[in-house]
Amino acid sequence: MNPIDIIIKKKNKHELTREEIEYMVNGYINDEVADYQVSALLMAICLNGMTFEETYNLTDVMLKTGDILDFSDVEGIKFDKHSTGGVGDKVTLALLPIVGSLDIKAVKMSGRGLGHTGGTIDKLESINGFNVNLPEDRIYDNLKNIGIAISGQTKNLVPADKKLYSLRDVTGTVDSIPLIASSIMSKKLASGADIILLDVKVGSGAFMKNLDDARLLAKTMVELGKRYNKKVIANITDMSTPLGYNVGNSLEMIEAIKMVKGEIDNDFSKLVIHFSSHIVSLAKNISMDEAEKLVIDSIKSGKAFNKMQEIVKYQDGDVNYILDVNSFRKAKNIILVKSPKEGYVDEIDALKIGEISCRLGAGRLKLGDNIDFSVGIELLKKPGDYVNKDDVLLKIHSNFDDNTTFINDALSAYKFSDKKKDLVLIFDTIS
Amino acid sequence: MNPIDIIIKKKNKHELTREEIEYMVNGYINDEVADYQVSALLMAICLNGMTFEETYNLTDVMLKTGDILDFSDVEGIKFDKHSTGGVGDKVTLALLPIVGSLDIKAVKMSGRGLGHTGGTIDKLESINGFNVNLPEDRIYDNLKNIGIAISGQTKNLVPADKKLYSLRDVTGTVDSIPLIASSIMSKKLASGADIILLDVKVGSGAFMKNLDDARLLAKTMVELGKRYNKKVIANITDMSTPLGYNVGNSLEMIEAIKMVKGEIDNDFSKLVIHFSSHIVSLAKNISMDEAEKLVIDSIKSGKAFNKMQEIVKYQDGDVNYILDVNSFRKAKNIILVKSPKEGYVDEIDALKIGEISCRLGAGRLKLGDNIDFSVGIELLKKPGDYVNKDDVLLKIHSNFDDNTTFINDALSAYKFSDKKKDLVLIFDTIS
Repeated sequence: MNPIDIIIKKKNKHELTREEIEYMVNGYINDEVADYQVSALLMAICLNGMTFEETYNLTDVMLKTGDILDFSDVEGIKFDKHSTGGVGDKVTLALLPIVGSLDIKAVKMSGRGLGHTGGTIDKLESINGFNVNLPEDRIYDNLKNIGIAISGQTKNLVPADKKLYSLRDVTGTVDSIPLIASSIMSKKLASGADIILLDVKVGSGAFMKNLDDARLLAKTMVELGKRYNKKVIANITDMSTPLGYNVGNSLEMIEAIKMVKGEIDNDFSKLVIHFSSHIVSLAKNISMDEAEKLVIDSIKSGKAFNKMQEIVKYQDGDVNYILDVNSFRKAKNIILVKSPKEGYVDEIDALKIGEISCRLGAGRLKLGDNIDFSVGIELLKKPGDYVNKDDVLLKIHSNFDDNTTFINDALSAYKFSDKKKDLVLIFDTIS
Repeated sequence: MNPIDIIIKKKNKHELTREEIEYMVNGYINDEVADYQVSALLMAICLNGMTFEETYNLTDVMLKTGDILDFSDVEGIKFDKHSTGGVGDKVTLALLPIVGSLDIKAVKMSGRGLGHTGGTIDKLESINGFNVNLPEDRIYDNLKNIGIAISGQTKNLVPADKKLYSLRDVTGTVDSIPLIASSIMSKKLASGADIILLDVKVGSGAFMKNLDDARLLAKTMVELGKRYNKKVIANITDMSTPLGYNVGNSLEMIEAIKMVKGEIDNDFSKLVIHFSSHIVSLAKNISMDEAEKLVIDSIKSGKAFNKMQEIVKYQDGDVNYILDVNSFRKAKNIILVKSPKEGYVDEIDALKIGEISCRLGAGRLKLGDNIDFSVGIELLKKPGDYVNKDDVLLKIHSNFDDNTTFINDALSAYKFSDKKKDLVLIFDTIS
């Protein structure tokens, strides 16, 4: 076997065998296949695609390059959740305590933010003291004692994906359904969960720009999960507009806290309740209606909020942040941006809002950059809302003195219309 | 500008600008763009193609990375010739003295063989003493004194192509019409000739496996040449069968010598006469018929053979090899391979014959390998010939003791038929 023949085979649109995929992936990890050969293959995959069998083999080969976590000696069903990433997507922050309060367990590995999308780990770190790097024994203890542990990714989980993703990132080969599906699912499968909930975002702020691609990605990931006897459910949800009201680390943490306390009713809270119900329904083998009742009851009764406090406490976080959201550090300037006209808000470009937030300091342009927890954007008016001229559309939380560009850019993200827009939050559910 | 955006642009089938192509090619030469990024772009080009404008820009950018030769102070018209490579293709060896004898000049840069195709430089070196590495002043003197100089490629000619070709070779990205066209034409244009004759081979023994691709490649190269005000003519010729009777270094040199002396009449000699006439017609502004008369006269009168001796002498070669072909080193064993049946020879697979010759030692499996000048294959029966059972089909010139595999492989290259095949030597001429 040699790398050139394998590359040419894929270039000529033929299906690669398990052995050929193994040869390339393992050869790349062991520095026996050169990065310039792997990148040529990746581009051929981007342009010629992969069959499901190839995608499965790629996932399985990557999965087996590292550790596969096993928490089977901790009683109970474990779940995992993954979002393909979006602007204002703080679902995990609220979903974990809610589902956790119903005795369904999770060791949730999350990532940091890059570019216009934030990361769960960064948002949690806006709580003073919150430790996302717990040693393995403490993760294990937390799982046993309170059912939920949150962690940055461990080093030995799918090292092939780490190396391949870094290469894809610099060779324009990120954007491929089989590559995205195998990257996500190899990590989810390595995390040892029984139930996997996937949120495939579609729209301007997401990887997937159209519904067909999102559906194909969701279907591929669900099928991959089934090969491993996992219960997998994928929702295809809107990311043309930021999710919820708040974008930025502390701001999103605050919105998540309010949601768990039952103080918020918007697209974000609806998604959390829906996803939580999916997981509860699968874990307890009950209907979605029954599951939703349990979820809402947990929020109303304060059980979910208690679980949130417990999680923060067990990860060395300052619980006062949860009890009083005024504890979060605030930005120096909060600028009100007013509507230039009256009418219905028709669109808020998620990508633009995400980019402004990133430039305000809430995100990273490159790995390792510091981020500013306090800054971000608070949307007061969202698609479907009617506004009068000079109504406040949004607030910019900034530590800059001159915010003219941010204001202009934020305004340019808004589109207005005479008619109220029909809003779709969940386009499809695939299981 | 950044490499990732440029790669993604080509991946999304958009036309790259001159500046973008320049950025990638020059960046690669200066080690500012990584090889894994260039290989991803090369694969995207292979699969999504290039417009003519992109191909022109790539050619021009590559051309300008090195020296452009200028022999304009040597009086007279200069020509160059390029073949995309085939089995038994010794056309240059005969064409140079013939055209040279008619006062048309050339500094011919040629390459060494790799894989199943031989190289002009290797074939010339089968003449004792022949120096293909003359210093620049001697090349210049030979051009002035006898009109013809032959040389291995100089280092400063299109360094971008050297580096890119090495990368294409190991990343499965050789096979692309815009990449092949720009690679060939950048080198031809850098050699400073006024007339460029291109031989695009098509068939099992060639890069181009079908006529449509060959035509597109030929057309692209002719158009590229015209952009630089060169007289360019491309012939698309058959390479389903080896050219002429002999394959292997000394054997091909011998066949070329005989051809120049007018002792051979076969597909090879026809091609040499046709190509030579093309060049003479363009150089002297006369019709093809008039040109052909000059060519044939030069052969019959011995002028061409005299020029051949002159070239060998001026490059330190032993002229006795030319005067008496028995001077060439012979292989230890000459094995007669006989026909297993009677009928018309329908096909001789050029690729198979080329590969056998390579394995006999006439070719290189990798750069730097030594080659054996004496070995090769002598075809006695070619497509269109009628053979009786046990007629000798070919001779294997070998320095191995056990030649069973070579015999069996050679026989498997032959196909027979009840009907005589219509032979086409030149499919098309594009100018």
